Amino acid sequence: VAKRLEKFKTTIFTQMSMLAIKHGAINLGQGFPNFDGPDFVKEAAIQAIKDGKNQYARGYGVPDFNNAIAARFKKDTGLVIDPEKEVTVTSGCTEAIAATMLGLINPGDEVILFAPFYDSYEATLSMAGAKVKCIRLRPPDFAVPIDELKSIISKNTRAILINTPHNPTGKMFTCEELNTIASLCIENDVLVFTDEVYDKLAFEMDHISMASLPGMYERTVTMNSLGKTFSLTGWKIGWAIAPPHLTWGVRQAHSFLTFATSTPMQYAATVALQAPDSYFAELKRDYMAKKAILVQGLKDVGFKVFPSSGTYFVVVDHTPFGLENDIAFCEYLIKEVGVVAIPTSVFYLNPEDGKNLVRFTFCKDEETLRSAVERMKEKL
Amino acid sequence: VAKRLEKFKTTIFTQMSMLAIKHGAINLGQGFPNFDGPDFVKEAAIQAIKDGKNQYARGYGVPDFNNAIAARFKKDTGLVIDPEKEVTVTSGCTEAIAATMLGLINPGDEVILFAPFYDSYEATLSMAGAKVKCIRLRPPDFAVPIDELKSIISKNTRAILINTPHNPTGKMFTCEELNTIASLCIENDVLVFTDEVYDKLAFEMDHISMASLPGMYERTVTMNSLGKTFSLTGWKIGWAIAPPHLTWGVRQAHSFLTFATSTPMQYAATVALQAPDSYFAELKRDYMAKKAILVQGLKDVGFKVFPSSGTYFVVVDHTPFGLENDIAFCEYLIKEVGVVAIPTSVFYLNPEDGKNLVRFTFCKDEETLRSAVERMKEKL
Ligand SMILES: CSCCC(=O)C(=O)O
Ligand SMILES: CSCCC(=O)C(=O)O
Repeated sequence: VAKRLEKFKTTIFTQMSMLAIKHGAINLGQGFPNFDGPDFVKEAAIQAIKDGKNQYARGYGVPDFNNAIAARFKKDTGLVIDPEKEVTVTSGCTEAIAATMLGLINPGDEVILFAPFYDSYEATLSMAGAKVKCIRLRPPDFAVPIDELKSIISKNTRAILINTPHNPTGKMFTCEELNTIASLCIENDVLVFTDEVYDKLAFEMDHISMASLPGMYERTVTMNSLGKTFSLTGWKIGWAIAPPHLTWGVRQAHSFLTFATSTPMQYAATVALQAPDSYFAELKRDYMAKKAILVQGLKDVGFKVFPSSGTYFVVVDHTPFGLENDIAFCEYLIKEVGVVAIPTSVFYLNPEDGKNLVRFTFCKDEETLRSAVERMKEKL
Repeated sequence: VAKRLEKFKTTIFTQMSMLAIKHGAINLGQGFPNFDGPDFVKEAAIQAIKDGKNQYARGYGVPDFNNAIAARFKKDTGLVIDPEKEVTVTSGCTEAIAATMLGLINPGDEVILFAPFYDSYEATLSMAGAKVKCIRLRPPDFAVPIDELKSIISKNTRAILINTPHNPTGKMFTCEELNTIASLCIENDVLVFTDEVYDKLAFEMDHISMASLPGMYERTVTMNSLGKTFSLTGWKIGWAIAPPHLTWGVRQAHSFLTFATSTPMQYAATVALQAPDSYFAELKRDYMAKKAILVQGLKDVGFKVFPSSGTYFVVVDHTPFGLENDIAFCEYLIKEVGVVAIPTSVFYLNPEDGKNLVRFTFCKDEETLRSAVERMKEKL
């Protein structure tokens, strides 16, 4: 294996999902729904396949889908963008992240991450030869330590990566935090790469896109995807929105990473993004009910549950149960209790920092959530 | 844009397809069929979507598909491989190429390409920081200059990239060439990365997989895809087959480039790879008829047509028509004649080397091929 990937292991999500199958455990680990996506989107995919939309898409997206992404972005942020020059369709947000890093970051550039962070950020920065600097968000509220951020920005800082709503904690960056980060970026000529795949799963406050803050659009790459919003994580449809000079880099990397994204699925995604407001409202209502079940259950079981404002994840402190760290706890939970959670140490540069925390997802039907809680009540 | 991608332009395939649309020209440029894929594969995709196979696939592939790939490989090469440890499903062969380069090549490693070559090889090697060394295959037969190859291999050579049947020329590496390259690789401890996406479009001789030669499997990454064989280029389903120690690197890069590939399409691809022999025979028969129409037509028009043994491409010498180079010729062809071809200079490290040659594809219905020939007869 090439040196740039030597330190990385099999992604924890795969590891845990495979253990879930092996042990017949209830999988509250990897973030994929155990219910299906909406019929109107599935029907649109079927129609596209039948209609013969089965050959290479234009590399940066089929025109209808680029238009739909721009229209949705306008609805969400008020910003008017050019679908032809500022939107790149990718094979999931994971590819948007890789294309952004490889397309815009040079060896030696410093990029700031907030830990805990999704594992592909560090791995793709390693591919790009970047120097990763990391700021830790601490429980209970995972607030941004602004002074630390100020002190870590240097003249070599090329970008800050933001993920809001935030995986794994469910934190949403506050308006104040975003404004402060925005000022620092403008002052120091720093880019923002923002992963907003959970933007429609914002429960306790309104989602704010970094790109919508004054002066920020021109220095921001906004990444999103279809999977979480439409419960179709397996379709792998994502996109990156950025001003033309940044889009150029993203597209160049994308051209050589995958060239283009599934054509029929892009047509289906076009229909999805045009869903009426009621679709998004219902999604949110459903998830709030699921969240209530899981959060109350975890509290009843005896965890310390940290507040989650968005995403379909919650993070808890497992130390009341006396296991030595998050990995040991998750092993015990799978083998003795029959429930899968995700250890959070993999989300930190220094794994020690995550040793008290594990993540549960509530993107499962209510009965599954209730059964998982029952198992934990009985056997933990 | 990051320095690693500075020298690359918008891929020629996108450029030419967009010009085709703009000028209403007949597109014999980018290699995508203007007919649809087979119903049994489309039906399988529709069924998978209906059956709710819509959440994240296992990162390296849904088990059924990994099995189907291994079974097909056994049928094609006689080699028995472990679908769990030696197969990685990717978002098209383009991603398999990127994951192979980023997962296995270190900065400074030398990798040998045969020019002309598909553009993503050089771009992904640039992402990996490799040193590209290049050997030119020359018309009329595009034979491998073995002495040159011997002299270019050094102790820093990590891999040789082979593409057979070969895009753009249609050359198929002969048994003798492959054996010689294999000996050199074994002698010098060099890997082979082999792109065999056109393996089922082998007309004038039998396709030979490098991995099937004695001693080669353990040092070979074999890449393939669904698109060309099943006329579904827009589905973006590919894979890499390699021994476990090489698969590890490919999977690590793949994990962070796209994480996983479209789940319903993998189920459909599983059905596709189990197609009866008659499917592949008919595909070949159809393409031989198309090829005959185009080749004869191009000769009648007055081109010097170089023999093509496989792929759905042929390369011609355009100099009888007096335009200064391949780009100028293709521009003239689009604007004045209404036909799109691909200039080959983009397939060389030194663009001068391709200035006399252009590539036509015959993956179009017979009427389209005939109309293109008619236009050229009239207006060239
Ligand atoms: C590849 S897993 C993607 C993100 C997610 O679903 C998770 O964090 O579990
Ligand atoms: C992305 S285009 C892929 C290869 C091909 O079809 C071509 O060479 O035209």
